[in-house]
Amino acid sequence: MTISVAELARTMGGVVEGDGLVAIAGVAGVQDAGPGDITFVARPKYAAAAATTRASAIIVGPDFEGRAPCAVIRVKDVDLAFVTAVALLAPQPVPLAAGIHLAAIIAPDVRLGRDVAIGPYAVLEPGVTIGDRTAIGAGCYVGHFSTIGRDCRFYPHVTLRERAKVGNRVIIHNGAVLGSDGFGYTREGQAWKKIPQVGVVEVGDDVEIGANVTIDRARFGKTVIGNGVKLDNLIQVAHNARIGDHTAIAAMAGLAGSVTVGANCQIGGQAGIGGHIRIGDGTVVGARSLVLKDAQPGSVLWGTPAIPLDKAKKINAYVMLLPRLREKVDELAKRLKALEARLEADGRAAQSEG
Amino acid sequence: MTISVAELARTMGGVVEGDGLVAIAGVAGVQDAGPGDITFVARPKYAAAAATTRASAIIVGPDFEGRAPCAVIRVKDVDLAFVTAVALLAPQPVPLAAGIHLAAIIAPDVRLGRDVAIGPYAVLEPGVTIGDRTAIGAGCYVGHFSTIGRDCRFYPHVTLRERAKVGNRVIIHNGAVLGSDGFGYTREGQAWKKIPQVGVVEVGDDVEIGANVTIDRARFGKTVIGNGVKLDNLIQVAHNARIGDHTAIAAMAGLAGSVTVGANCQIGGQAGIGGHIRIGDGTVVGARSLVLKDAQPGSVLWGTPAIPLDKAKKINAYVMLLPRLREKVDELAKRLKALEARLEADGRAAQSEG
Amino acid sequence: MTISVAELARTMGGVVEGDGLVAIAGVAGVQDAGPGDITFVARPKYAAAAATTRASAIIVGPDFEGRAPCAVIRVKDVDLAFVTAVALLAPQPVPLAAGIHLAAIIAPDVRLGRDVAIGPYAVLEPGVTIGDRTAIGAGCYVGHFSTIGRDCRFYPHVTLRERAKVGNRVIIHNGAVLGSDGFGYTREGQAWKKIPQVGVVEVGDDVEIGANVTIDRARFGKTVIGNGVKLDNLIQVAHNARIGDHTAIAAMAGLAGSVTVGANCQIGGQAGIGGHIRIGDGTVVGARSLVLKDAQPGSVLWGTPAIPLDKAKKINAYVMLLPRLREKVDELAKRLKALEARLEADGRAAQSEG
Repeated sequence: MTISVAELARTMGGVVEGDGLVAIAGVAGVQDAGPGDITFVARPKYAAAAATTRASAIIVGPDFEGRAPCAVIRVKDVDLAFVTAVALLAPQPVPLAAGIHLAAIIAPDVRLGRDVAIGPYAVLEPGVTIGDRTAIGAGCYVGHFSTIGRDCRFYPHVTLRERAKVGNRVIIHNGAVLGSDGFGYTREGQAWKKIPQVGVVEVGDDVEIGANVTIDRARFGKTVIGNGVKLDNLIQVAHNARIGDHTAIAAMAGLAGSVTVGANCQIGGQAGIGGHIRIGDGTVVGARSLVLKDAQPGSVLWGTPAIPLDKAKKINAYVMLLPRLREKVDELAKRLKALEARLEADGRAAQSEG
Repeated sequence: MTISVAELARTMGGVVEGDGLVAIAGVAGVQDAGPGDITFVARPKYAAAAATTRASAIIVGPDFEGRAPCAVIRVKDVDLAFVTAVALLAPQPVPLAAGIHLAAIIAPDVRLGRDVAIGPYAVLEPGVTIGDRTAIGAGCYVGHFSTIGRDCRFYPHVTLRERAKVGNRVIIHNGAVLGSDGFGYTREGQAWKKIPQVGVVEVGDDVEIGANVTIDRARFGKTVIGNGVKLDNLIQVAHNARIGDHTAIAAMAGLAGSVTVGANCQIGGQAGIGGHIRIGDGTVVGARSLVLKDAQPGSVLWGTPAIPLDKAKKINAYVMLLPRLREKVDELAKRLKALEARLEADGRAAQSEG
Repeated sequence: MTISVAELARTMGGVVEGDGLVAIAGVAGVQDAGPGDITFVARPKYAAAAATTRASAIIVGPDFEGRAPCAVIRVKDVDLAFVTAVALLAPQPVPLAAGIHLAAIIAPDVRLGRDVAIGPYAVLEPGVTIGDRTAIGAGCYVGHFSTIGRDCRFYPHVTLRERAKVGNRVIIHNGAVLGSDGFGYTREGQAWKKIPQVGVVEVGDDVEIGANVTIDRARFGKTVIGNGVKLDNLIQVAHNARIGDHTAIAAMAGLAGSVTVGANCQIGGQAGIGGHIRIGDGTVVGARSLVLKDAQPGSVLWGTPAIPLDKAKKINAYVMLLPRLREKVDELAKRLKALEARLEADGRAAQSEG
């Protein structure tokens, strides 16, 4: 399938500069693109690359002043326009095999909704409930009495342990583990005695959970992932943590036990939140930050330990200038010594004069 | 099953304040709890929440001065008392399916102890030995010649590569990988040449290993996880590392190659230990610390690079005060300049007088 | 099998000090080694351990001046010599089961090369191509239309999602996930709307990928892992990232979306590279660094945010000396105050004299 540049421009609400009749068959990044592809530049740092792209067309924003050796579609919002192009031209997602694979093991009392797909080597333990049109990939494990809602997609090798509850339209990527035991022990002399982890994990609607994420079950009660939460890969969510609706967390971040993150927060990659910390709604935590104090709603934090971003930037600037501060202090010391010597000399002179 | 508040109090060694006849059927956190639940407040920051809990009973400590709209059990150690409540009231752990599932693949020469449970789609390669009452979950992989002791529990999707040795009463959570190749190469021009990783992994007794943890086999010899070690989720233990008995490591920490951590240490979340570093017994490493020097037994470390906690806190306080230090230096410079100008003027005056 | 110390020394190009007739049967670290083992000391910090080793022979370098209670082989390059010893004496790698296991599910149109091995419970979806002599371990999942080259080894539980391309001689360790969706959303009011992730993952030749690594597919176009790249465990590579040839990345490092890392780079453990950052060829990034600016080829970086290593070390030294700087400033302030007071007094004296 191909679409002309002119037609693409019309769909995007953009203006063609150059040949609108060129046929476009695919989408690609500005460096990868070849003949027949459409590409885009959304950031100034890629503008130079436009000049040498081998694409047949390029989407640019109002401010783009560079040149491109191909048809240009100028739009208001480059990202949005490219999403449109991708939707029209990209390879379609692989259609899921329908039905229950013969090599899935499904306990007799499992309740399956309509049009459910279960992949080979999946295991559904007794008491499980699966909603309509949900797909459970190859090799997934769903523990006893867990329930999964409608229109969910579990990619291969997901583990959901017993008594978990997953909402509707939830996507879970490969290797993610939900409901493993929380990390809790009491001391018995030198040894550690395990505290039973008898709580559960509850996941809301419209959640997406990345590959190899781990979410522990609660010590008691629930670990809660709110509606619309998006978790990137390799994230750790400890026992009894709660993540508010529509909060997004980037890869490799970790939430310690009993952390509460509010709604609409954004947590950067490799960030950490200390045990029992509460983070208010709409808080932004920068990449690699370590939050060790409760944060008011709307906070913007950065650093280890995390402090308000403005202050963190200022402090960091002062740190970078430390060598100069040190020089300045040394210079002041020298001048002060000179003054002292001079006054000393004056004093002695005055004495000898006196 | 329900238990009266009075009976719970007696079991915990606590004192009832309010109605001891109230029937309790479950446990929950102070915010989640509803009628029929018992909850607790162990930390001052949750004390306010006691006033609005919907629980039917609450466990509090000697210092609790707040109010609660329900029966109160006052105890010496709230955490311990709640563990008792959980043991009495929480849902019982899911009983493990006994026996060998027909869809497990077990090499003919595998030696299985008594009352072993093997889940569906588990694979036990030739030469494997499994001790009495050990349970291997669905989809686990146990490599050639590996031995696993008595009373262990491998949750689904655990990988144990060849020639590994796991002790008794070891719990391994979903997706953990033990015995993958260490990361070792030599340069060959621009390219890297793989150093064969021919060692093994040895895990002691009473160890617990979290979800998606990775523990590499030794380049030669052994990577050693001591008795009673507890590892949280997503931890990396590189080739030839050794972790001493009863050491506990929080989520997302990483030990580089040939690291030696002593016994009874506590390593915080997201911490890192550099290659070949030795950490003495009883050392505490704070969250997110990066240890790049050997540490004496009993050290308490924090920071990147890690230094003694006291010093790290002091340095951090000085860093936070840098803007004030800078102001002070600027003010000194101004005053010094004024002095210099005055002396200069005095000098000139003296000269003109002279 | 045993080899004499003399024969080992000859193979290594080393010189025997002591009894060359001693028979050696195994290799081990200096602390683990017992009678019949050969060990080595390559680092000064282990030299003391040589004196108490129970090994039957030890490999040492030209500078080793310690004593050893066993035969000594002195060589130029200890590491290289020990690799030779390991190759001769270590247990041989477990031979892979040949052929296609009956309990593998292979779509009818999958193209398999010669001498391919497929483990039990592996799933190969329609359109997959596997090259000659490649081994796919138990429970691996290979998605639709993906192609894997010759002489590859996928350990059990690897996931390769649809349309991925893997080169020749690639090793992928347990639990690694290649091709999961990138983390991309647009705002729709408070909610997040998923951006379709329609790109792919492309892995070059001679790549090794560690356990539980996650590599996301591109939003469009490709996420690229170059030839000869080595990735340690638990690494995150986000959508559209590109890693140049022969770059090595240590465990737990994370590359954000659209990052470009050049060829022959070395990235330390737990490091992070911010979104869209470009890192030039031959760059070295220290452990735990967070790179937030583009880096010129050959850069050596450290810190959060990362700066040139020399500068980072200097700044860190200044930070450690902050308490002393503060003392110095306080002392200057005191001396300045004394001078001011003295001049004030002199002034008053001069006035009263005047």
